[in-house]
This record gives sequence, C-alpha cells and structure tokens, in this order.
Amino acid sequence: MSAPTGTAAVVLHAGAGSIGAELRECEQECRAALAEALGAASALLHDGGDALDAVRAAVTVMEDFPLFNSGRGAALCTDGSAQLSAALMRGSDRAAGAVAGISHTQNPIAAAGAVLQSEQVLMIAAGADERAAAAGLAQQPNEYFVTARQQARLQSSVDPDRGTVGAVCLDAKGVLAAGTSTGGVRAQPPGRVGDSPLIGAGTWADGRVAVSCTGDGEAFIRTGAARQIAMQVEFGTPIRVAVERALVDVATLGANGGIIALDAEGVPAMVFGTAAMPRALWRAGSEPSIWVAP
Amino acid sequence: MSAPTGTAAVVLHAGAGSIGAELRECEQECRAALAEALGAASALLHDGGDALDAVRAAVTVMEDFPLFNSGRGAALCTDGSAQLSAALMRGSDRAAGAVAGISHTQNPIAAAGAVLQSEQVLMIAAGADERAAAAGLAQQPNEYFVTARQQARLQSSVDPDRGTVGAVCLDAKGVLAAGTSTGGVRAQPPGRVGDSPLIGAGTWADGRVAVSCTGDGEAFIRTGAARQIAMQVEFGTPIRVAVERALVDVATLGANGGIIALDAEGVPAMVFGTAAMPRALWRAGSEPSIWVAP
Repeated sequence: MSAPTGTAAVVLHAGAGSIGAELRECEQECRAALAEALGAASALLHDGGDALDAVRAAVTVMEDFPLFNSGRGAALCTDGSAQLSAALMRGSDRAAGAVAGISHTQNPIAAAGAVLQSEQVLMIAAGADERAAAAGLAQQPNEYFVTARQQARLQSSVDPDRGTVGAVCLDAKGVLAAGTSTGGVRAQPPGRVGDSPLIGAGTWADGRVAVSCTGDGEAFIRTGAARQIAMQVEFGTPIRVAVERALVDVATLGANGGIIALDAEGVPAMVFGTAAMPRALWRAGSEPSIWVAP
Repeated sequence: MSAPTGTAAVVLHAGAGSIGAELRECEQECRAALAEALGAASALLHDGGDALDAVRAAVTVMEDFPLFNSGRGAALCTDGSAQLSAALMRGSDRAAGAVAGISHTQNPIAAAGAVLQSEQVLMIAAGADERAAAAGLAQQPNEYFVTARQQARLQSSVDPDRGTVGAVCLDAKGVLAAGTSTGGVRAQPPGRVGDSPLIGAGTWADGRVAVSCTGDGEAFIRTGAARQIAMQVEFGTPIRVAVERALVDVATLGANGGIIALDAEGVPAMVFGTAAMPRALWRAGSEPSIWVAP
C-alpha cells in the first residue's frame, strides 16, 4: 500500500474496437463527450472529492452520450431490447456494487452505486431495477435506451458493438476507484452478461490498482483479467506490464480488447490490441489528453 | 503446467456453516448424499471419463439432495421463491459456463454446462432458463425447488443458510475442472447473486488448479477469491497455503467460509473458517473419505 500522494488522476475509455467510417465521422462528438466526462471527474477530484464519486460522474456522462455503448444508445439484444450492466468498486475497502441485465434505471452506474451501499454486491434483472428505484434513481421505459442508430445496427452486419465505457480514478487522499458500464454486444441473446459488471473480470479496485476492461467479454471472464492484473501488481509487476500480460492472456483465447488502469502513485496504463480505443487522461497539474481514432 | 499424472481425484463440499442441531440429526443422510456424489464422480473418472463430466455428475447428485442448499431444497428469497445459480469451468482450455438467478431448470449445473458449450459464458434469469430448455434440459415449476424445510427456515431466525455445493476433479488425462451450485442466502432479495456462478470469485479452473468456494458470497466476490488462489499457485505458492491466504483475505472483510481446491498433481486442499464444512475426498487407488460434522 502506498501513502497518499496527492497526485489525483483520471483515466477513461469508451470501448476497444475497429476504426469504422462512423468513428471518423463522429470523432468530434466523441472527443467532446470524453472531454465532458474527464472534466466532470477532474473537477470533483480537484475540489478534494472522492475517487468513487469521480468515477460515477465520468461514467454518467458517457452513459448519457448516445454514441457510446452504455446507458442511452446501448447495443441491442436480438429481441430489440436494451439490457444494461455496470459495476463500481472502491479500492480502500474493496466496497463493490454491480448490476447486470437491467432494463429501466436511467444510469446503470448509479444503480451499481446503490448496490455498493447495501449488503449485496451483485443484483440482476428486475430485482436490480427495483433496488435502484427504491433508492430514488430515475427509471425509464426501455425505449429510452433504444436509439435509431442501434436499431439500424441490429439489422446490419457491421462488426459487433463492444464500445463499453469505463473510468479509473485516484483521489488526493490516495484512494483508487473503478467503474465500467455497458449495453453488451450487438444482437446478444437476452440474459447474456459479459465481464463489465463482474468484479475481478472487467472491473476491480484495491489499495494498489484500479482496472476497467473492454472487449470480448467472455475472454475477460475466462482469464479473470482485472483480478489477474491486481495480483501481478501485488507481486511487484509494473502496472503497464501487468496490463499487457492480461491482454496477452486474453489473446491466447483468440480474443481481443483494451484495458485502462491506474496505480496508487497515479501511474496510468491504457493498452489495447484493437485498432482504436477512445480514451482520455488527466493528472493533477497537467493538461488533459484525449484520443479517439486511434 | 504439469504433465498428466494419472492421479484422478475428486473433492466435494456441501457448504461452510455452523454445526446446528439439524446437521447432527441429518448427519447420516448428508453422509449418504456425499457418498453418492463422490461415487458418481469417481466411477466416471475410474473409467477414463473427463473431469468436467465428473464435476457435473457430483454436483447433480448434491443438487437433487433436498438438505443441501442447491437445486431442490435451495434457500428461499424474501418472496418465497427459489433463485438458483451455478458455474462450471474446465481447466485445460478455461471453457466456462454459468447461470445466475434461474427459476425453472431442474439442475442448474446442467444449465451452466449448456452455456459452456455456447459462445456465452454467463446467462441470467429467464434468458438462461430458455437456453437450458432449448438444450433439452428438464424444466420445473419453481415450486419443485421449494421444500417445507426451507419454507419453515424462511420464517425463522436461524443463521443464514449458505450451504452451497461444489466439486473439483482431476481426470487421468491431467485435466482439472470445477463446479459450484447454490440457492444463495436465506431471505435474500430476489435478484441477489453471490460468488458461486462468478468465474474467478466462487469457481475457477485452469491448467494448475481447480477451486470451489462457499461462505459469505459478497466477500468472496470482493476478494476475487478463486482467481487469487490460481494466481498464487501460478507464482509457486503451495495449494493449501494459497487457499488459506484467500480465506485470510476474506476474513479481513469480516467474513467467513470454506474453500476446496485440487492441483494438477492431485494434491487437495479443504479449508474452512466455520465450525463445519461437509466434504468428501477420493483419490485413485485410495478409499474415499467423508466428513460431515465437523
């Protein structure tokens, strides 16, 4: 464990995937959404806010942005519905909350936050939406999440949509946090859940490192990617090497994706095996950096 | 990775918990169920069968036994329903399948097996039951799972029912597999999911080790218990030490439970911090051993 360093930092991703014509056309919009998410998180941290709140703020902005595959604009299931999943974890006490396969809570990351504050860690389907509603979180008809863009994609043969979003933050008190939110994979069967809401697969935070993954979700589950990185860091592996090893492990299963991570000294890692991974970085005292394609 | 050793082995658990009057009264029945499960798995392995099939056979017997908290006889949710979860993983290729919050598939471990043979890894709720039904697996009304014993427990103030079942097996070809099945915690809110169906939390298998956990599920998720053990073993820690460290980590969160594991040489570990963990062990060429209380 490291002592607080005062080096607050934010790293964001908006999914690993190909560089299609759409990403080039929408580059400025995506850049603006990442800038807004980065600004929301960094402003909180700059004012002494908690890493968990900063993660939640950044992910909320990205969920609300309809071109990312989370919240409104999520990839659709075979039946045309949106099923949403998210996870949130605080490193200092490993408090965690997650929801999988929800249909109505406007911001899935907020639902994950409500679970984090309860005795449970993972709530699914209707029970998870009910928990979020009981916590006062805004509910929406499922149509709220369904965009014309994703309806068109559901009918097309474009590459699978895996543009999950995620954030890892370090606050001035030295606390790390991680969060991930997704609509899953385009044309997934209803009930399919990937790595994003699974603590230790797509999302993890402890005293040493915070991790958020994106890509072929099944392979990230089967490699225990996020927990694997944390154990590597615990055994002394530098964060970037640990992240690269996890992606190599994912590749041994014939799969691909990207990972962002942040250690307790504020050292970031942003690694992806795909053509692009829209991402953003802010560290206290430095200018923000944003990359869309590649 | 180890070369095949020919030392086929089976380790089973039926949950970590207290030694109540009930466990003493039902000791012979529980012992007989464990013996039947052990016999089903060891007979398969003795005849050259696969570790995955042996795990499935043992867990099926335990799911069908109404005094264990899985399949028929599962702990009930606040609304009186049974919600079942299970996971299955094969170490040689890390193929994995899991179901969470299902209500109708007679044997949840069979549903996990159907998911393992698909592109998905985790299916939840109605979509998971539909997948199992499509694979030809027997469906039941939810009342099938609800026993008078668990209905009485739901009204009582006895300790939470956490008697998950699990199996880890090594076959003569040197392949490891793990499986876990549960009804969750008595009086859980509908939609709550614990560690059992989560690959890397309650269930894991790779080329070196197979793991199945039981206990306070939320803490096993927050410690990434099973994946943590596998990483320790990868770094050279003996299996029993790795298992004990994971239980210490669970204890740092104020929680408790038990873990069974098996390595590629057939070395078993059965460790629990609770008063009792019904369990069983068979190794090729040796007599089976069964322990109920303690």
